[in-house]
Amino acid sequence: MKQLHKQSASARKDEEMPASDTPPYSPKSLKNPRSLPRSLNYILKEQRLLFVLIGIVIGATFFILQPSLSSSDGRGVISIANRESIDGLGHRGQTDFGRHGYGKYTNGVGRVPVGIGNRRKRIVVTGGAGFVGSHLVDKLIARGDDVIVIDNFFTGRKENVVHLFGNPRFELIRHDVVEPILLEVDQIYHLACPASPVHYKHNPVKTIKTNVMGTLNMLGLAKRIGARFLLTSTSEVYGDPLEHPQKETYWGHVNPIGVRSCYDEGKRVAETLTMDYHRGDGVEVRIARIFNTYGPRMCLDDGRVVSNFVAQAIRKQPMTVYGDGKQTRSFQYVSDLVYGLIALMEGEHIGPFNLGNPGEFTMLELAEVVKETIDPSATVEFKPNTADDPHKRKPDISKAKELLNWEPKISLKEGLPRMVDDFRNRILNEDEGRGSR
Amino acid sequence: MKQLHKQSASARKDEEMPASDTPPYSPKSLKNPRSLPRSLNYILKEQRLLFVLIGIVIGATFFILQPSLSSSDGRGVISIANRESIDGLGHRGQTDFGRHGYGKYTNGVGRVPVGIGNRRKRIVVTGGAGFVGSHLVDKLIARGDDVIVIDNFFTGRKENVVHLFGNPRFELIRHDVVEPILLEVDQIYHLACPASPVHYKHNPVKTIKTNVMGTLNMLGLAKRIGARFLLTSTSEVYGDPLEHPQKETYWGHVNPIGVRSCYDEGKRVAETLTMDYHRGDGVEVRIARIFNTYGPRMCLDDGRVVSNFVAQAIRKQPMTVYGDGKQTRSFQYVSDLVYGLIALMEGEHIGPFNLGNPGEFTMLELAEVVKETIDPSATVEFKPNTADDPHKRKPDISKAKELLNWEPKISLKEGLPRMVDDFRNRILNEDEGRGSR
Ligand SMILES: NC(=O)c1ccc[n+]([C@@H]2O[C@H](COP(=O)([O-])OP(=O)(O)OC[C@H]3O[C@@H](n4cnc5c(N)ncnc54)[C@H](O)[C@@H]3O)[C@@H](O)[C@H]2O)c1
Ligand SMILES: NC(=O)c1ccc[n+]([C@@H]2O[C@H](COP(=O)([O-])OP(=O)(O)OC[C@H]3O[C@@H](n4cnc5c(N)ncnc54)[C@H](O)[C@@H]3O)[C@@H](O)[C@H]2O)c1
Repeated sequence: MKQLHKQSASARKDEEMPASDTPPYSPKSLKNPRSLPRSLNYILKEQRLLFVLIGIVIGATFFILQPSLSSSDGRGVISIANRESIDGLGHRGQTDFGRHGYGKYTNGVGRVPVGIGNRRKRIVVTGGAGFVGSHLVDKLIARGDDVIVIDNFFTGRKENVVHLFGNPRFELIRHDVVEPILLEVDQIYHLACPASPVHYKHNPVKTIKTNVMGTLNMLGLAKRIGARFLLTSTSEVYGDPLEHPQKETYWGHVNPIGVRSCYDEGKRVAETLTMDYHRGDGVEVRIARIFNTYGPRMCLDDGRVVSNFVAQAIRKQPMTVYGDGKQTRSFQYVSDLVYGLIALMEGEHIGPFNLGNPGEFTMLELAEVVKETIDPSATVEFKPNTADDPHKRKPDISKAKELLNWEPKISLKEGLPRMVDDFRNRILNEDEGRGSR
Repeated sequence: MKQLHKQSASARKDEEMPASDTPPYSPKSLKNPRSLPRSLNYILKEQRLLFVLIGIVIGATFFILQPSLSSSDGRGVISIANRESIDGLGHRGQTDFGRHGYGKYTNGVGRVPVGIGNRRKRIVVTGGAGFVGSHLVDKLIARGDDVIVIDNFFTGRKENVVHLFGNPRFELIRHDVVEPILLEVDQIYHLACPASPVHYKHNPVKTIKTNVMGTLNMLGLAKRIGARFLLTSTSEVYGDPLEHPQKETYWGHVNPIGVRSCYDEGKRVAETLTMDYHRGDGVEVRIARIFNTYGPRMCLDDGRVVSNFVAQAIRKQPMTVYGDGKQTRSFQYVSDLVYGLIALMEGEHIGPFNLGNPGEFTMLELAEVVKETIDPSATVEFKPNTADDPHKRKPDISKAKELLNWEPKISLKEGLPRMVDDFRNRILNEDEGRGSR
């Protein structure tokens, strides 16, 4: 309709032009410069108006059909295939997705034949310039969706999405989710939130605002526009668990007034809000409780153990182990998580679902793998533990297995080298950057 | 300074008066009505100006001293004594406060001799028109402080504070704490929040907003103006506790996604925010974890067990017991709580502190006491339990005993009759109101 108005308006303008006082060089302007009735008369005569209308219809038809035309031209998909091969994954010509039996998620949506009304999806990813977010965006774009990233770049980096700049199906909005925003989309992946202790402790009050006001704003948006909303919660809602492994039914053991509480309690209340919007307003919601995840594009110095160890080993520094190194963690490779998030969003179950790799490693075992992968001469250095650091955590993922048909596929020994390639490049660039300055 | 300007301005006016065109009855006006230089000359001659200045100083001194003069005139205290005797407590001529050995809190502040600079305190009580808040306000006014109540009247009632209307040391602002407010005060008691399940479940998202944005706003205010801030948290932060009785060090057992979570998680995150403002911004904070409290001015039909039983027994209805009636609760009389809150605010310890009565009663025992007090023929009716209702809860108050020198004094058998008097009056008025309509 908009196009139609535009067309007809410009058509009218073209016809009226002669009647206005244009420069004397125009021969028509000599005739009778101010006679509007005569011009109108001219337009109405000899079916000129009818042809204008036909022109309008042709023009409008083109614009109305255009979206479905462009979605079937394969351009986006091809350009992504190219881009994927130069992303941070270090596996040129071979994408991480689609190699591990996830085909069913890759083909479901987006690429419909011309003429069938099933549009591709419009999806918002908040925090889409971050570690997990940028991998999720790659996957959604590759699948054929329109993706809008909302990010305030607190911990996110343009480098994580720069390969998508110029892709018409990708859009980046610099925006803080603490402020409301109005968009028209079908799905909202809500990831915006600093995820590592150094970052979320930096300004604890802001962390709570991001979790509460940010989640409120995105739930409000979902309610207003009827979008489906997915919250990326965290295994930290289990705190320092007294049950092991943790099932989704476990209520957790969290210190409400500690230095990590801004994140743990912030995420818990974000879950509460999500369920309240679901129960009270019928918003379609999904909740993922994400366990430790690693992979390319992680922050280099965010204090998370995998990135710490890898960066330290590459830089030939001793790997810092807090406490006695016997606390365990489970480590999930990022592409596994991305498939889990998409399976959850597309599925019929609200959750919460644990998304994590149940394979357990002590800090010392992890150090050993890093050593093997990067540098057999790497050493370990012990430091006292930080307050409230949970002793062990391991997901029970039977619910996700059963209801989402999902489970992680990539082992630490498979995943770590891919991350190391990315880290090595970035640390090298860092050093070169320093050297050339 | 303001007074000084005022004085001198009016002094000048008096002197200039003759020079303006006043009625001809003034003999001076006949001389030279418009000669300003001559008038000035007249003022400056014969030390007239000097005397004006002396007058200014005398006047200003009076106004500067006035606040401390009026605080020692005993007016406020007398009017409160009168008012207390007609409040909802049903004990005419005898106030609830000051009978149970709390003298030390009653005399500390406010009534200082003339000339000593120690002003009375300016105190904000958010939620001050509610059950607990209105009793706290009574106590603070009786002590001689200036009190500002902020309330949106969601569950509060004007009746609870109407006896203070017209008292110059009392002020009522209709305001929702979800919006920021700017005031100049010394202390902030932050109570604003619906406290009973029927009310906080009514709009769970609003309950979270009140707890998070409300607490943020009041902490922001405290930071800006350097006020001390007290949060009224709740025993609900312990959830359905696995430890019994609950110490302040217990992290709790709370369902993050249940129907009560808006309150439990909302209060937990309010505690987190409070501690983060303390750690990060040096705000002086206090945290009270309040256990079940009862007394006059409780809502009649708020679903809390004491008010339910009492109202039902007075109305000759069977008392509703949820579940098997064997879950226990501790019940604290409201004046005990008010003394605890003031002791906490005035003391040197941050908390959190449990404020509750450790005396444990099962629902069936409570029903028995109500029966004895109100109506020996009262009956009990059993209904299925509501979701997430904690099975038992009992405060360990040794920390408050030791550090605040506080413990509850009023037993259920003492406190219940006072509440019953108030409830009987209100239910009677209700019935009369209905009858006359
Ligand atoms: N990576 C993990 O191991 C892990 C584990 C559990 C949960 N999670 C959750 O997954 C999500 C993504 O984590 P990540 O590892 O990619 O972290 P990240 O820090 O790399 O990404 C977070 C992104 O959110 C953005 N952001 C932060 N605050 C924002 C705000 N107020 N407005 C707009 N954008 C904002 C950041 O700039 C960043 O791009 C987070 O919600 C996190 O809590 C991650
Ligand atoms: N009474 C108890 O047994 C108990 C137990 C634990 C904690 N508490 C806490 O003590 C405080 C007072 O409880 P109460 O029993 O007097 O409850 P109440 O409902 O009688 O009082 C709460 C007051 O806060 C006001 N209020 C609510 N939301 C507001 C908002 N957004 N802006 C401004 N005012 C608002 C209400 O109008 C009401 O006057 C609450 O914070 C409650 O959580 C009470």
